[in-house]
Amino acid sequence: MNLSGIIGYPVTPYSQDNKSVSLEKLGNVIDILLEAKVDAIAALGSAGEAAYLSESEWRLVADYTVKHVANRVPVIIGIAELTTDKAVNYAKYADEIGADMIMLSPFSYYKLSEEEIHSHYEAVSNATKLPIMIYNNPATCGVDMSPEFMLKMVNNITNATMIKESTGDIQRMHKIFALSNGKVPFFNGCNHMALEALNAGANGWCTAAPCLIGDKPKQLFDAVKNGNSQEAQRLFYQQYEFLEFIVTSGLAASVKSGLSLLGNEVGSPRKPLLPLNPAEKKRLKAMLDILV
Amino acid sequence: MNLSGIIGYPVTPYSQDNKSVSLEKLGNVIDILLEAKVDAIAALGSAGEAAYLSESEWRLVADYTVKHVANRVPVIIGIAELTTDKAVNYAKYADEIGADMIMLSPFSYYKLSEEEIHSHYEAVSNATKLPIMIYNNPATCGVDMSPEFMLKMVNNITNATMIKESTGDIQRMHKIFALSNGKVPFFNGCNHMALEALNAGANGWCTAAPCLIGDKPKQLFDAVKNGNSQEAQRLFYQQYEFLEFIVTSGLAASVKSGLSLLGNEVGSPRKPLLPLNPAEKKRLKAMLDILV
Amino acid sequence: MNLSGIIGYPVTPYSQDNKSVSLEKLGNVIDILLEAKVDAIAALGSAGEAAYLSESEWRLVADYTVKHVANRVPVIIGIAELTTDKAVNYAKYADEIGADMIMLSPFSYYKLSEEEIHSHYEAVSNATKLPIMIYNNPATCGVDMSPEFMLKMVNNITNATMIKESTGDIQRMHKIFALSNGKVPFFNGCNHMALEALNAGANGWCTAAPCLIGDKPKQLFDAVKNGNSQEAQRLFYQQYEFLEFIVTSGLAASVKSGLSLLGNEVGSPRKPLLPLNPAEKKRLKAMLDILV
Amino acid sequence: MNLSGIIGYPVTPYSQDNKSVSLEKLGNVIDILLEAKVDAIAALGSAGEAAYLSESEWRLVADYTVKHVANRVPVIIGIAELTTDKAVNYAKYADEIGADMIMLSPFSYYKLSEEEIHSHYEAVSNATKLPIMIYNNPATCGVDMSPEFMLKMVNNITNATMIKESTGDIQRMHKIFALSNGKVPFFNGCNHMALEALNAGANGWCTAAPCLIGDKPKQLFDAVKNGNSQEAQRLFYQQYEFLEFIVTSGLAASVKSGLSLLGNEVGSPRKPLLPLNPAEKKRLKAMLDILV
Repeated sequence: MNLSGIIGYPVTPYSQDNKSVSLEKLGNVIDILLEAKVDAIAALGSAGEAAYLSESEWRLVADYTVKHVANRVPVIIGIAELTTDKAVNYAKYADEIGADMIMLSPFSYYKLSEEEIHSHYEAVSNATKLPIMIYNNPATCGVDMSPEFMLKMVNNITNATMIKESTGDIQRMHKIFALSNGKVPFFNGCNHMALEALNAGANGWCTAAPCLIGDKPKQLFDAVKNGNSQEAQRLFYQQYEFLEFIVTSGLAASVKSGLSLLGNEVGSPRKPLLPLNPAEKKRLKAMLDILV
Repeated sequence: MNLSGIIGYPVTPYSQDNKSVSLEKLGNVIDILLEAKVDAIAALGSAGEAAYLSESEWRLVADYTVKHVANRVPVIIGIAELTTDKAVNYAKYADEIGADMIMLSPFSYYKLSEEEIHSHYEAVSNATKLPIMIYNNPATCGVDMSPEFMLKMVNNITNATMIKESTGDIQRMHKIFALSNGKVPFFNGCNHMALEALNAGANGWCTAAPCLIGDKPKQLFDAVKNGNSQEAQRLFYQQYEFLEFIVTSGLAASVKSGLSLLGNEVGSPRKPLLPLNPAEKKRLKAMLDILV
Repeated sequence: MNLSGIIGYPVTPYSQDNKSVSLEKLGNVIDILLEAKVDAIAALGSAGEAAYLSESEWRLVADYTVKHVANRVPVIIGIAELTTDKAVNYAKYADEIGADMIMLSPFSYYKLSEEEIHSHYEAVSNATKLPIMIYNNPATCGVDMSPEFMLKMVNNITNATMIKESTGDIQRMHKIFALSNGKVPFFNGCNHMALEALNAGANGWCTAAPCLIGDKPKQLFDAVKNGNSQEAQRLFYQQYEFLEFIVTSGLAASVKSGLSLLGNEVGSPRKPLLPLNPAEKKRLKAMLDILV
Repeated sequence: MNLSGIIGYPVTPYSQDNKSVSLEKLGNVIDILLEAKVDAIAALGSAGEAAYLSESEWRLVADYTVKHVANRVPVIIGIAELTTDKAVNYAKYADEIGADMIMLSPFSYYKLSEEEIHSHYEAVSNATKLPIMIYNNPATCGVDMSPEFMLKMVNNITNATMIKESTGDIQRMHKIFALSNGKVPFFNGCNHMALEALNAGANGWCTAAPCLIGDKPKQLFDAVKNGNSQEAQRLFYQQYEFLEFIVTSGLAASVKSGLSLLGNEVGSPRKPLLPLNPAEKKRLKAMLDILV
């Protein structure tokens, strides 16, 4: 699988009472991403509040996303579970329903050793034929994986073929590139470092930003790849404040608020997550007024 | 409720294939704790692998623990859930089955704001009449609560009456004591800081150590409370290496290995958690040979 | 040398225009410490602004302190220099003028490796017959030394016989005590952790607090050593807010302001250090009104 | 002053016995930098071991550098002193001898407040007519300045007109660029982040690398500025391992070893700094064999 470009992350809209998933609205969000020219759809990532869904909701969202995208672009299913058994079951399900790839991160309560993480990835790899993107996001998942260790897993584990790096430390990407001679594809998961990640050799950018600002992320990707560095810098700083805002305000809350501001009411994130407060909404509106 | 002393944490033993909980073995572990003179039993804490249980297993362990303890000491039920709804449901269940107290921590995927955490505690408090111990353990739960904020919740939220502090920073305890004029009970959750926490005014020590070393933690508690400071120092350093070991090697893995070494086979923790490796087991055995 | 108890740190008063040291006022501060029953005087520590003195001022303060104390208690000379040559020269001078001990810390611009730090201590040890207290204070000196490494130096380097630990991490003291079987004397350099450090086995407490609050630190030391743990806790919390304040507001600035508030005008610290601002002075005054 | 490009940092060679500065060898190092097409020379920076020189040596190096460069490129004088008085005196001296600019950082023993740092910069600015580059390098200087605070100083303090950012956090550069609308020039001080800093809008790169690898840094600068992004990426990864090495092994030690390996013996850094050990020298030699 030769993935590159913008990987778009839908949020998960709920019904009015927040008790169930609204598939219709989810379909709408996916369509918004496709119109924004994303090169793939990643369901059930951080933005999709996967950690806050019940098992049946999780399966419903995975299944619906694959069906709704209907091969227009590849579909990646995020898996971040506390037990290996559950991760394995979800991976099997992703395979069954026809997803194209798994994005797997080690979510932790107890800190995990490298041996524990390695076994976790191995078990998932053995349960499926789908390619696995190793996803490192210590801020949400509570465990940090070094470039050296992730490359070791790429080397050892059959289906582990790509890396998503979300620490926001550009040196991690240098290490991945240098130690693999540029041969292991890696993706940027830190929105407000997109310009540098792409310049440092990232194959793509994983982002929920296209839910709100259309193809501007895709334009930035293209500018870097086409060597228009002046234009890339301009496009990046145009989006920079917005990108920083959605990260620091919480992706699910800010993207859901933004969609509502743009006329696509998708409700609030699930508690304990709260929607943006009025001052934050005002700030987001001001940014969207300029960008959209 | 006037809680003080040693609050003992059972591990959760599984069946041979690790697929279900072994209640018989759980009862055995609880009995070991009671023989070690603990002043309360806290089910479904970190040591109990609550994060790795299914919902039905969780309810089974809670229910069995209350019944097995049968009012010999108070039973505290740990709740660390990602959604407020699930935490509320668990709290209601704890109340129904006759538990004496809830120990509530904010487990997070997205970082939570103080407003989000406050709402979470408030919702749980409104759902039950049980007293709530606010539990701060950023290393496992991914969110850190300041002493000032926890005291604010004690002040604002009806059932939130106590604090368990597990950061390992003794200054947090100074703050809790000083800002509340010594009136808000707090408990130590950092095993290898027990001596200092008790000297700084902690009402008790939350620990799984009595699963392995009998009433030595209780002896330390008594020595401090009775003002035998020489003896307290001696008892602490006697246990110190062991206490540090079970924390840094993972509580569930090390306590389960220790129980097996002592003849109470309780199996392994649930994957991705791995049991102690042979070198760690050897080190633990050497410590237990001296302490037990 | 058998050092224990309270090691008092004088500030360094300047002349009116801040351009030179006022020996008369320094003598007065030393007398205040001796009246506060300190067991030793440590000149040219952090509180003494050693880092901000010229070489000739440094020598003047060292010389004057030894003469003024006149063997009433031992005198310790602090050395924290960027080059080994200067540290060696200062150590020789301390020896010549009749000081009793050196407190040596590795002040750094470039981070130093353990090999570099070891050589530094060795060179100083070879230049003097005075006992050396290894002083770890990463917050001011920019380099952190582990308990294991400091104990290695105590083992390898003839005159290195004691440790002062100022990280504020009680686990460092546990390690020093446990790894040396309680045989290497260590001293607490974190004012607002004094209660716990002494309970954990510290031989003494290095502090500038007696410049302002008389023998209250000595009372706390005695209460712990005599096993009056209730009284020790009471004395600690009585001083706690004050101790935290002088650490977080800057020792030199806050102790100098405090001395002025108590009628012993000693001027300001040297720029870029600024004196306490009016709000901080007011807070300090309120604390001293109760404590003195 | 319109500074951009590569700002080259000479090391400070000593005499055989390490007791005095060798001006002849310093001249040689400066010539190597000029042949490597640097756009300015910055004397007495970290690489120049300014923190380890006596006052007279410091003045000698400053004076000699200005004379030896003889207006071929601008000369910047680094000032990182513990007292404001000394920083002011050095600034006056830099002005007198005809230097073109000052690079000023707040070196600290006690942590400094923003008010203290602001006063420090103001005092230096009032003492000279030279432009001041605000230099943030918490790893060596022990104090961290936020982009917001540095921009405030640029706004408030007459001669403070530029910023050098060395934290290695690309977000700091985004903030400087975005908050100043790209109008306050900033320079990269983190060697192994040069590619991204330049893409993010840095006006130049402060580096000692040209002491060893000729105009390769200049080639990288030109490639980015000319929009040859493929070539820039290639040039960066060609130098990346080397750039990371000289940072993590200590600039002074590694650049001095590298010069010796290339036939320009300049001796060792001053103690406690040690030269590279044999394994490090071997690794450096292997890198230089490819790059030079």
